[in-house]
Amino acid sequence: MEKDKTVSNTTIRRLTKYYRYIEELNSKNVKIVSSYTLGKMMGISPSLIRQDFNAIGEFGRQGHGYQLDTLKQEIGNFLGLNKVHNMIVIGAGNLGQTLANYDGFDKVGFPIKALFDINPKLIGMKINGVEIIDLDNLKSFIKNNNIDIGILCVRKHCVQEMTDILVDAGIKGIWNFSATDINVPDDVKVENVNFSNSLFTLSYLMNDKYNLA
Amino acid sequence: MEKDKTVSNTTIRRLTKYYRYIEELNSKNVKIVSSYTLGKMMGISPSLIRQDFNAIGEFGRQGHGYQLDTLKQEIGNFLGLNKVHNMIVIGAGNLGQTLANYDGFDKVGFPIKALFDINPKLIGMKINGVEIIDLDNLKSFIKNNNIDIGILCVRKHCVQEMTDILVDAGIKGIWNFSATDINVPDDVKVENVNFSNSLFTLSYLMNDKYNLA
Repeated sequence: MEKDKTVSNTTIRRLTKYYRYIEELNSKNVKIVSSYTLGKMMGISPSLIRQDFNAIGEFGRQGHGYQLDTLKQEIGNFLGLNKVHNMIVIGAGNLGQTLANYDGFDKVGFPIKALFDINPKLIGMKINGVEIIDLDNLKSFIKNNNIDIGILCVRKHCVQEMTDILVDAGIKGIWNFSATDINVPDDVKVENVNFSNSLFTLSYLMNDKYNLA
Repeated sequence: MEKDKTVSNTTIRRLTKYYRYIEELNSKNVKIVSSYTLGKMMGISPSLIRQDFNAIGEFGRQGHGYQLDTLKQEIGNFLGLNKVHNMIVIGAGNLGQTLANYDGFDKVGFPIKALFDINPKLIGMKINGVEIIDLDNLKSFIKNNNIDIGILCVRKHCVQEMTDILVDAGIKGIWNFSATDINVPDDVKVENVNFSNSLFTLSYLMNDKYNLA
């Protein structure tokens, strides 16, 4: 693999999806899979799958199928999944607590190490074993606990302020659930989860006027 | 506008984003906006904005800027936002309750009318004024309350079963938070919100090995 390989955002989304299916097959003790079988499972054409895999490395030979363990490792390397990313949640409201309650992130190497809030009623509580800490301690916690990713679950009016604190503390990845776009330096990466955008997309898909010509 | 206009998924995501910014400007009593100003706010090139707007209708003349109320209405029509979509949540766990607690959906015409669960401890409770109802009553509730959208917040093992019940009851849109792909007939539209996919994308973006050539 070359170091300067870059692929499109759409391909990344497909690769994360392959990874998910591969994990599922792995858990069923499957060792080898063909692009045909994977394509049928996922509703993606086998040729597109082969093209995606070729884009990130060289696996297997035509007609022999793919070794699942190699495939998983290579896609994992590509996506940066083969190491632990420590995360913290900013904002211990409903959504923040929901994310802390979800064990799936820890299982794939993305443990949530703490939640932060300013509400004295919440501070000291534990959610699924994860403590809610006073926001005043954010910066030192990040520095002392090797935190890679900050998850923003705060209200609109303080999102940029929280972002600036995270960036200042050296955070390089922000997972933004705040429904507002944020400004960060070039070396900080942001992934937005915007529920309204997603809902509006569903609404468009359901809008017969345009879909059913 | 023609009835058979179709645009790409990426454009839809941008249109939903424009809609969000237009609402924000509207709330500040702005009446007219140029593609230049909107582009600067959103970090999108003015020419791409003009191209997107041209794809769905004809607004304004070169150099005169866009009337925000017309723009909002046309994009809203296109996305199917100018009518009410009643929603229900299947699964009243952490995530389901978080969604019910969020007032933002109701404000844009997507009210949550009920949550459904099988847990007798939850049934009868109200979350933000929305009742948790026994799953046994799902089908009749959908028929009697003009429900358009089912939100899936259930565990993997029963996702497809719940999907089939929703489809059977006539639901045409499914907002799927279940981290598993679902099978539906062609006339039922699905929008997936997959937290792991999103997190893996962030991980890729942070993966220096490939990003910084």
